[in-house]
Amino acid sequence: MIKVVAKNYIKADKVDEFIVLAKKLVQETVQKDAGCIRYELFQDISNPQVLTIIEEWENKDLLDLHMSAKHFKEIVPLFGGFTERPGETNLYQKLV
Amino acid sequence: MIKVVAKNYIKADKVDEFIVLAKKLVQETVQKDAGCIRYELFQDISNPQVLTIIEEWENKDLLDLHMSAKHFKEIVPLFGGFTERPGETNLYQKLV
Repeated sequence: MIKVVAKNYIKADKVDEFIVLAKKLVQETVQKDAGCIRYELFQDISNPQVLTIIEEWENKDLLDLHMSAKHFKEIVPLFGGFTERPGETNLYQKLV
Repeated sequence: MIKVVAKNYIKADKVDEFIVLAKKLVQETVQKDAGCIRYELFQDISNPQVLTIIEEWENKDLLDLHMSAKHFKEIVPLFGGFTERPGETNLYQKLV
């Protein structure tokens, strides 16, 4: 299993638009992408501009396949217009 | 539900020691703390010095109670001696 934490810092006036698009990405991914165990959108409770997608994938190959899917390639490049500063994405293995 | 992502940047020569202690924290928390839905330790697959605990709690009150538990107060302050630079902890609400 691979865990992904993709953290985004969104401009205050773009938060609502980002959420609409990110929800679409979640829905398409959960419906269509093989190997997706969990794919969820979160908002920091003390800073609404921090929006993070937390994912679980069966393996790295299926995660790579997700990143080449039509919905990923259409939606994720649009996020660049909404960000205040670069985000961080970590890929993790579970230790315990 | 509250999601917590607690990311730590650990000194290279302290990674093994950190993992031993963090595993103890995970085990004690899962066994003893009310309201704990998930509490898991992850290591970045490209940078083993990035070690992150990802948690799910029934609510904020039970998360606060966890942070006042004996095992939390004994183990977490020790992490300070292992870190290369300050980590980040985010508390999240789930949007979708």
